[in-house]
Amino acid sequence: MVERNRRFVKPVQNEENSKELIQGLLNQDRAVLAKVITLIESNAVRHQEQSKNILQKLLPYSGQSIRIGVTGVPGAGKSTFIETFGHLLCEQGHRVAVLAIDPSSPISGGSILGDKTRMEKLAKHPNAFIRPSPSRGELGGVHTRTRESIIACEAAGFNVIIVETVGVGQSESIVRSMVDFFLLLVLTGAGDELQGMKKGILELADLITVNKADGDNFNQAKKTMREYNQILHFIQPATVGWDTKATICSSLTGTGIDEVWETIQDFIKATQSNSAFKERRQKQVKDWLFALIREQLETAFFNDEHIKEVWPKVEFAVMNGDTTVPDAADLLFSAYKKKDS
Amino acid sequence: MVERNRRFVKPVQNEENSKELIQGLLNQDRAVLAKVITLIESNAVRHQEQSKNILQKLLPYSGQSIRIGVTGVPGAGKSTFIETFGHLLCEQGHRVAVLAIDPSSPISGGSILGDKTRMEKLAKHPNAFIRPSPSRGELGGVHTRTRESIIACEAAGFNVIIVETVGVGQSESIVRSMVDFFLLLVLTGAGDELQGMKKGILELADLITVNKADGDNFNQAKKTMREYNQILHFIQPATVGWDTKATICSSLTGTGIDEVWETIQDFIKATQSNSAFKERRQKQVKDWLFALIREQLETAFFNDEHIKEVWPKVEFAVMNGDTTVPDAADLLFSAYKKKDS
Repeated sequence: MVERNRRFVKPVQNEENSKELIQGLLNQDRAVLAKVITLIESNAVRHQEQSKNILQKLLPYSGQSIRIGVTGVPGAGKSTFIETFGHLLCEQGHRVAVLAIDPSSPISGGSILGDKTRMEKLAKHPNAFIRPSPSRGELGGVHTRTRESIIACEAAGFNVIIVETVGVGQSESIVRSMVDFFLLLVLTGAGDELQGMKKGILELADLITVNKADGDNFNQAKKTMREYNQILHFIQPATVGWDTKATICSSLTGTGIDEVWETIQDFIKATQSNSAFKERRQKQVKDWLFALIREQLETAFFNDEHIKEVWPKVEFAVMNGDTTVPDAADLLFSAYKKKDS
Repeated sequence: MVERNRRFVKPVQNEENSKELIQGLLNQDRAVLAKVITLIESNAVRHQEQSKNILQKLLPYSGQSIRIGVTGVPGAGKSTFIETFGHLLCEQGHRVAVLAIDPSSPISGGSILGDKTRMEKLAKHPNAFIRPSPSRGELGGVHTRTRESIIACEAAGFNVIIVETVGVGQSESIVRSMVDFFLLLVLTGAGDELQGMKKGILELADLITVNKADGDNFNQAKKTMREYNQILHFIQPATVGWDTKATICSSLTGTGIDEVWETIQDFIKATQSNSAFKERRQKQVKDWLFALIREQLETAFFNDEHIKEVWPKVEFAVMNGDTTVPDAADLLFSAYKKKDS
């Protein structure tokens, strides 16, 4: 099932139906899950309150899935890969939810993913749920909303959650901070391609897969795989006790798709036996809490009327070399504290 | 001149002599510079106030040096390299200040660098000033104090500032954020060695130099240099418009030491012509201001009596899955705000 026209799914107005939503969701009703995610993503205060209450109730039913992040530059074939990969898992009896973080295009004002018809085949599978979520440029938002949507999907009985993100900007490290396993999809021509990616992205990955390894491209893909395996030799792996490797795959012919799933299963086994799995999840929860606190502290500071007024002057003085940075920070901070007392 | 026993250099007690200190420092008196840095590093409130006033006066005389960060794992030969390199520059008429960020050993309570007799030859040169600064484990402290010491050194007429740091932990990215050029010293056997370094350290460097390229080690060093040059092909360079490369050098025979200085001069020329130099310095000032604000906001939050009391319970509830992270963050933040109003 795909929520393509989610903007027109009206969030439920009545708080009385929270119970109904929770029950429907626990009964694995995908239409209810879609409604709950719409609530989670709504900026209206009453929806936020309602979704918080619902999530609190869903929390005990969450946490049992494998959370997989998938990233790659635009054109790396993420959607087609997820379609083929997700379909394989659904056919094996897994229930697969796909949450796509979709940075809204600042030019068109629209969504990069929304305009395309995506994952048609997977969307039709009874075991699948697909949800593109526009990020509207708010990274903090992505952080919070997607994590909450993962909880909702898990409570709705999905045991494999795939979070898809475009491998540019900051979204990959945020997605890395909410998944167990991180897959980087790449194309042939490693060196050139890495130029367009974010620094340090290789160090986030648990597996690098050279996609589109089919037809005339097959040998080139093999060569690129070997190049990546060489590079990986010099890079500290993302996960303790796990050696990140590079493989090839083709979403067209199916080559290497099952190998990805086998690798993920090996990974889960390895990280559960050395407790890296549990420790990462606990660290993710703590980091999330810290990130939210930090965000709230900074938002309060930068939205403060005093600070808004003083900031440009202080910044000018600092850039101009008229005042030292520690003096400027003290001045700003005491202006802020003064207001409070 | 080396400040080996800086702990016994008594900071001046009298605020009246600030004028005298400023005058002495501008007259390039190294003993006065040493006293001012001792004030900068002092945790006593009256010293901090005095050093702030002094720095404010020194600010117009700062900014004219080339700031170079040097890092590498323990044993990479940083001190010997800086001694040879610094001596070469001093002989050419440059005035070279070395600020070594020295993570105090948590075991002995003492300083790693302080126990060794370091850079004896360079220390004796009339154009050199060497200052090891124990970080006492406070990274924020390093950030602030070392940046302030750079200002003092520049006002004292030093035109090359070398900030040395051990290439483990978080200190390299902090040092990267306060220098123009970042040099990574490595040893032969790239792959093995990188395991001990921080992730992403290659992406901070403007030059990688394989040290100890002498005697039996020469050919191996050449080989390692080629390996690093291969890896660098896949990594986005640290500075816009500059291709990070790997070279070899020997602090023993002098091989490649002048090449390091030539590379730095090329770098300055290139980054000044494409304005990357100026933009990085401006960004560093802004980032420093943000970092200090963030630090003060978080310190105030985590030292708050309410928060100290509530935090362990909230954290337990979150880790235990009893409450969602956004709920926990809201609860903590509103407890904090309530106290203020």
